[in-house]
Amino acid sequence: MGGDHGPSVVVGGVKAYIDRYGGEGVRFQLHGDETAIRAEVARNGLPADVCEIRHTDKVVGMDEKPAQAMRRGKGSSLWNAIEAVKLGEAQAAVSAGNTGALMAISKLLLRMAVDGLERPAIVASWPTKRGFTAVLDVGANIGSDARQLVEFAIMGEAFQSAVHGVEKPTVGILNVGSEDMKGHEEVREAHAVLRTDAVPVNYTGFVEGHDIAAGTVDVVVTDGFTGNVALKTAEGTARFISGLLKEALTSGPMAKMGALIAMPALKKMARRIDPSSVNGGPLLGLNGIVVKSHGGATAEGYGNAIRVAVDLARSDYLTKVSANFARLSAVLDTAEAASDKEQTGEIQS
Amino acid sequence: MGGDHGPSVVVGGVKAYIDRYGGEGVRFQLHGDETAIRAEVARNGLPADVCEIRHTDKVVGMDEKPAQAMRRGKGSSLWNAIEAVKLGEAQAAVSAGNTGALMAISKLLLRMAVDGLERPAIVASWPTKRGFTAVLDVGANIGSDARQLVEFAIMGEAFQSAVHGVEKPTVGILNVGSEDMKGHEEVREAHAVLRTDAVPVNYTGFVEGHDIAAGTVDVVVTDGFTGNVALKTAEGTARFISGLLKEALTSGPMAKMGALIAMPALKKMARRIDPSSVNGGPLLGLNGIVVKSHGGATAEGYGNAIRVAVDLARSDYLTKVSANFARLSAVLDTAEAASDKEQTGEIQS
Repeated sequence: MGGDHGPSVVVGGVKAYIDRYGGEGVRFQLHGDETAIRAEVARNGLPADVCEIRHTDKVVGMDEKPAQAMRRGKGSSLWNAIEAVKLGEAQAAVSAGNTGALMAISKLLLRMAVDGLERPAIVASWPTKRGFTAVLDVGANIGSDARQLVEFAIMGEAFQSAVHGVEKPTVGILNVGSEDMKGHEEVREAHAVLRTDAVPVNYTGFVEGHDIAAGTVDVVVTDGFTGNVALKTAEGTARFISGLLKEALTSGPMAKMGALIAMPALKKMARRIDPSSVNGGPLLGLNGIVVKSHGGATAEGYGNAIRVAVDLARSDYLTKVSANFARLSAVLDTAEAASDKEQTGEIQS
Repeated sequence: MGGDHGPSVVVGGVKAYIDRYGGEGVRFQLHGDETAIRAEVARNGLPADVCEIRHTDKVVGMDEKPAQAMRRGKGSSLWNAIEAVKLGEAQAAVSAGNTGALMAISKLLLRMAVDGLERPAIVASWPTKRGFTAVLDVGANIGSDARQLVEFAIMGEAFQSAVHGVEKPTVGILNVGSEDMKGHEEVREAHAVLRTDAVPVNYTGFVEGHDIAAGTVDVVVTDGFTGNVALKTAEGTARFISGLLKEALTSGPMAKMGALIAMPALKKMARRIDPSSVNGGPLLGLNGIVVKSHGGATAEGYGNAIRVAVDLARSDYLTKVSANFARLSAVLDTAEAASDKEQTGEIQS
């Protein structure tokens, strides 16, 4: 029931997913208003054995506060979808609904994968020259301390290898320069821990804003404030340039003719930066798989969020992350001790 | 002598500035190796009465630490250029040299415009649909408290009206959402101060990453870490999309033919996002005008940095900022008191 368009985009997304990716062996539970959903299932010509409808009247509003949603959300479509994951009736949940409520209810019902993890992180798959870079956190947390940044590195690495099939993904921390003494304390500390080789990720050092789209590393780690600003700034830049391009290619008869002739090539390019193709941001760090779709996503975009959820559910992502987290506490103690020792006498400028 | 290319780009930049903007009444002091500079002046056919060469052998290296540059930099080309501003022999300094050294020496010689201002802020002119948005700080400071953010608002507003001729520029603070309770403490506090109307800027509220290129406001205020990441992320995104476009338009004979026909329109568009046309980031907050050019700028880009310096020097920017700063302290006390009162009983989530 969530998002700007409700069941039409959600059920349309199921159709888009099946059409594009085949949907072999994937079945769907659709939580919400039965009549509205049934109408959409019929309109999209979906086979009945693929879609099970679980009725509820209750809906979490798009502007409800997280605390309110936790108190009053029980039995809502959002709640029921997450609960199905908790009960093992579903292997993943996808929602275009209220992000804060989704995070709060997911945390409440599924719990965090490890003690000390405070909130899930949202990961974005960022299109680059070389494929996709995983960037996290892009907005679940406002500030992130050094330990959280290290956790993001572990989760991002597992995500990147599970969903994008990258073997031994490289990991970098987003900063304003590449030298060891650059940036604020949190990034310098996380950098010191990760570069010790004690944490089982392939850490390569600091990266800068331009490295994201360049694909310099497979995973970019950053706090939720910076990550959110970076993601939205990149989206705004892409929209601005696309707008200029459209303006240029319709600015006169010659431009229009040239555009017409080059159209197939231009369309192919547009698909690479189409927001639909990158829709679907998993909430990492939970005992279960929850994927957030953009509230304004199209059916095709929602289909992509479903693909991300299926890929994660079919991979060894959860096992891998749990294993790495289990090792993390011990490893952090050792690494922090080593880094403290190393920093003694070092001048910080 | 600074930047990746030294005198060839600096003197070439003078030529580019004169060719493009006329250079009426502007004269240049060129600090550095006389022989090298004289050769470039001759090569560019610049009239002798426009360029005064001030010789020095000493140069601040591109990787010298700020503290080192302050201790050892006296008499270097960078130092002498700033000193000329201090002595009133020049109205502005432009440098493509070491940013940290430029900041440190500028602060040492020119001093900050107001007590309590710790470091200059660097402002970027960001191309948008509606012209240019001033974004600051883009990297001079790592963290910025609420008071600094308010100061950025005042300096950015004066800059925007002086250089881009915007009357009563609108100002926004960069955040992860537009509601009052979003973001970390520093942005919420600065927001509370600015929205009281006590500070003399036209503040419209929080903006998000995508608002920068959309031109939602004329001035975007942010801490130096976030601003630096946002700027470099946008540059990376622009480069990535330009690369895709080039690839698409050379991907086959039809695409190439289309591109050829549409070329004049495409070139016009490329100029709007050309890094040269936005080169030149003033160091705001000093008693004097200092403009940083990108180290890798072309002569044309350097010419644009000169234009920014001339526009600032000819405007009432310094007077306006001083007047506003003089009012700021008194105003801040009132505004903070008012905002404290207003926040009592408000629930922060």
